[in-house]
Amino acid sequence: MRIAIQGELGSFSHVAAGQMVPKAKIVPCPVAREVFASVRAGRADAIVLPVENSLAGTVGEHLDLLFASGMQITAEHRLRIEHNLIAAPGTRLKDVKRVISHPVALDQCREFLADQAGIRIEPFYDTAGSVKHVMARLLTDTAAIASVKAAEEYEAHILKRGIEDDKQNFTRFLLLEKKSRPIRGSNKTSVAFALKNAPGALFKALSVFALRDIDLSKIESRPMRGRPWEYVFFADFLRGNDEASQNALAHLREIADPVVVMGVYKAAK
Amino acid sequence: MRIAIQGELGSFSHVAAGQMVPKAKIVPCPVAREVFASVRAGRADAIVLPVENSLAGTVGEHLDLLFASGMQITAEHRLRIEHNLIAAPGTRLKDVKRVISHPVALDQCREFLADQAGIRIEPFYDTAGSVKHVMARLLTDTAAIASVKAAEEYEAHILKRGIEDDKQNFTRFLLLEKKSRPIRGSNKTSVAFALKNAPGALFKALSVFALRDIDLSKIESRPMRGRPWEYVFFADFLRGNDEASQNALAHLREIADPVVVMGVYKAAK
Repeated sequence: MRIAIQGELGSFSHVAAGQMVPKAKIVPCPVAREVFASVRAGRADAIVLPVENSLAGTVGEHLDLLFASGMQITAEHRLRIEHNLIAAPGTRLKDVKRVISHPVALDQCREFLADQAGIRIEPFYDTAGSVKHVMARLLTDTAAIASVKAAEEYEAHILKRGIEDDKQNFTRFLLLEKKSRPIRGSNKTSVAFALKNAPGALFKALSVFALRDIDLSKIESRPMRGRPWEYVFFADFLRGNDEASQNALAHLREIADPVVVMGVYKAAK
Repeated sequence: MRIAIQGELGSFSHVAAGQMVPKAKIVPCPVAREVFASVRAGRADAIVLPVENSLAGTVGEHLDLLFASGMQITAEHRLRIEHNLIAAPGTRLKDVKRVISHPVALDQCREFLADQAGIRIEPFYDTAGSVKHVMARLLTDTAAIASVKAAEEYEAHILKRGIEDDKQNFTRFLLLEKKSRPIRGSNKTSVAFALKNAPGALFKALSVFALRDIDLSKIESRPMRGRPWEYVFFADFLRGNDEASQNALAHLREIADPVVVMGVYKAAK
């Protein structure tokens, strides 16, 4: 199976894809739009995409792209995010004058970085890409922040492991395929719906779940393109394709338009 | 009044601050955390902060910082975002080999940029900062994307106005002050609350508004630091400090803990 990811080889998406689909062939794409384009063009069969980090929140752009693509969620996975300070072999911590990485990774290592006197911090487009950059130019005064896998991928050296401030740092990844398929033990459904801008509309939409004792694990709103201050809602609820779920979705269709089931799958532990 | 903003002089926050508080003295800060720190340190009296764009969605980090600060929303404003291609005087469109700006601005001008053959696109940390950079180095092959105000601020030249793909591009800004104050004509309240992770908890929380015919204009969830997959909810509802609002908040306190009123103010038109 060829899995498209956003980012370079060695990115956290690469790590997640390897855990979700062992033996997958990874197709790295520079930006998220190209991840979806690569499936449309037949260069990849499926996608592994981060949609939420426990510290930084939802990756809204990825939800928008998933919604627009019509692809189906077939699995989810939670990855513990460990950041590492990585440099070219031979570089010592005291040689490092500059640290580069994705701004979110830099932000998640603020305390560690604040303790390093005289180090300049510079944003870079990608975590694994920052390791690739250090190794391609064999920079001796620059370190990157990325996964252990990135250090392995580019044969770089880990100066310090686990430099993230908060160990409760997890990212939720989804496996996306072109079509839905029955999945044994499915117990989670992701749905997107749009509401008329009427008082109590969201309350009525949530009632279709509450009245059936169906637990919502997440709800998120995203702006609709070209319709300022109108929203698409993304909700996850903890049911597979059973009768209560079918009834709730039929009820939701009385209130919301459109209602799009984005996947029925097994919840990550 | 000294108003702290995130970004350089000439940023969209600068434009919004000028419209919300004419004659304000602007205190530019490189990152959002420093905006709040500048008020705590007595270098600024208030803050003008973008919290939502009609295309890109909520700026979650800014909601988190507002919540943590305890500051109060005293006004809101909607600014139409117009992007312009800006260069040093003398540079012509055909001289431009590279365009730099904040990634969100670059993304919002994709169609225009796709039509410019042979132009390299590079992300920069700030829109107005990209104009400042072009002018500081008097680059003759590089253009920036930013506001008209940024061109004025750095005495740069506008090569092309209004290059954003979607004209329905608005950003919602808030004025934040240290303490709440009674505001004539208040008709909007922003509240943050945390829910126990129990089935139907959000439904019950929304019922306190729906049962009193109070219209919610926005609801957003953000992860709680150190408690993976638990959320703080940010809601805006269209009522000032009246009896129905007081009753709804008292009812909400029976369900949620904490419940924090972040401001009672006049809704933007």
